[in-house]
Amino acid sequence: MSEGSSFGRLVLIGTGLIGGSLALALRVAGCVDCVVGVGRNRRTLEEARALGIVDEIETDPARAVANADVVFVAVPVGAMAGVFAAIAPSLPAQALVTDGGSVKGEVVEAARRTLGARLEQFVPGHPIAGTEKSGPSAAFAGLYRNRRVILTPLPENHAAQVARARDLWTAAGARVEQMDPARHDYLLAANSHLPHVIAYALVNALGGLDERREVFRYAAGGFRDISRIASSDPRMWRDICLANREQLLSMIGRFHAGLEEIESALRAHDGEALEELFGQAKTIRDGLYREDEGGN
Amino acid sequence: MSEGSSFGRLVLIGTGLIGGSLALALRVAGCVDCVVGVGRNRRTLEEARALGIVDEIETDPARAVANADVVFVAVPVGAMAGVFAAIAPSLPAQALVTDGGSVKGEVVEAARRTLGARLEQFVPGHPIAGTEKSGPSAAFAGLYRNRRVILTPLPENHAAQVARARDLWTAAGARVEQMDPARHDYLLAANSHLPHVIAYALVNALGGLDERREVFRYAAGGFRDISRIASSDPRMWRDICLANREQLLSMIGRFHAGLEEIESALRAHDGEALEELFGQAKTIRDGLYREDEGGN
Repeated sequence: MSEGSSFGRLVLIGTGLIGGSLALALRVAGCVDCVVGVGRNRRTLEEARALGIVDEIETDPARAVANADVVFVAVPVGAMAGVFAAIAPSLPAQALVTDGGSVKGEVVEAARRTLGARLEQFVPGHPIAGTEKSGPSAAFAGLYRNRRVILTPLPENHAAQVARARDLWTAAGARVEQMDPARHDYLLAANSHLPHVIAYALVNALGGLDERREVFRYAAGGFRDISRIASSDPRMWRDICLANREQLLSMIGRFHAGLEEIESALRAHDGEALEELFGQAKTIRDGLYREDEGGN
Repeated sequence: MSEGSSFGRLVLIGTGLIGGSLALALRVAGCVDCVVGVGRNRRTLEEARALGIVDEIETDPARAVANADVVFVAVPVGAMAGVFAAIAPSLPAQALVTDGGSVKGEVVEAARRTLGARLEQFVPGHPIAGTEKSGPSAAFAGLYRNRRVILTPLPENHAAQVARARDLWTAAGARVEQMDPARHDYLLAANSHLPHVIAYALVNALGGLDERREVFRYAAGGFRDISRIASSDPRMWRDICLANREQLLSMIGRFHAGLEEIESALRAHDGEALEELFGQAKTIRDGLYREDEGGN
């Protein structure tokens, strides 16, 4: 983005953690003129306005995008098709549309079904950032700073629109990369969707114990960290899991197999095998993060 | 502990994170006269001395405990029996022996087999604290501050010895509770041993993917947190898993079932069931931790 330029009128469809944080980052960077928040829940929109995330609020997406420069769709993946269908008729021909969905294949399919002639304006994206919190009050300007954003451009996109999407995220502090949607969904099934499902399953397994109160009472930092993402929004994660179902099921299968390897060694009292499996994991994990971390 | 009193000569068998942190905490509290570090690896002992954890070093446990007031055994659970057998003959009749093992049933059995007439002096314990780091350089004085320590006293213990063990941990800043060893092992299988096994299995499952470099490259805070304890010491966790084998296998079984519930809903495209399972986990997890947490 050339200095001093602006993305003009940003329409945020979904004013929660992902959408709200982008708006705040762009405001701080001084490169939006006006932010319009769109959503079905008026209370959430009012909250977003009170928090300084949006200037104007609107419940009708079609009306909201009518004079948009950039439209950022940050709703659960399962709701994207409905949003696209609603905005297609009134979307200006120059407006950039991008999204923050955690699954790209299904979002691209939804866009192909619903955006019609506006498809070329849609540059799919996914910021690899977030917290287990949700809603406008969880949004903060620094969420994307130095985090990766993956764009999965369509063959139909004009290079200039892809460049604008890159500029948008760069202005928010992110590092932008590109890949195709299937590859994105494969990688994210492994490093994000599987971990979330594991965290949910672990908390439910312990929560089903008769002595759950004591189990949780005597839990240390290890449990705290491993379970953190079980606090993530259930509806959003329902949509992500359904949208990336095949890849996720395959990753769950791999994980079962990895767990069963440990189980077999344990059943066989095979200390050597256990130590090797644990050592292998430690070597990998130690290689990924070098900084100081918390307690277990 | 009455004010100004001291635990005298503390013999630390194992000078890593757990033992070293207790020594540092008691030093800071000013209630040890001298700390003797015992281990097989002279370099580790020298490191512990250089770090101010111990005053004296010794490679022979029998000689080290000959004029001990308190003996703290902080070696991997599988090595405890050997330590007990080694120190039993030279242990003074008034000395308190306690340990930091993460499994209590097998440690108690080991003590029964090896401590002979000294069994009554052994008050088993487990500080619910730690990090994924190990060795003397990981030790710090604040590790046990406001953390729980579970003592699992034996019927043979004198009340005065149990009280001394409580005082020791209280002086280190911990909150001391008591329960029987089997209950301890059940609770910890659920909230600690299972999570560690899951973290190891997850890292190995992803590490086995052809695209593991990209999988890890695009991983966010959720993966980072869920995998942190996969950096834990493999030998220590081998011992813990073997020592708590039955309880852990049963917890792994429960977890498989929890994961399969999510899998079934996913296979059936049952969004309602998924949202319910995720929502249930979120409600439980949200109820446990109210403070601010990190990013995913």
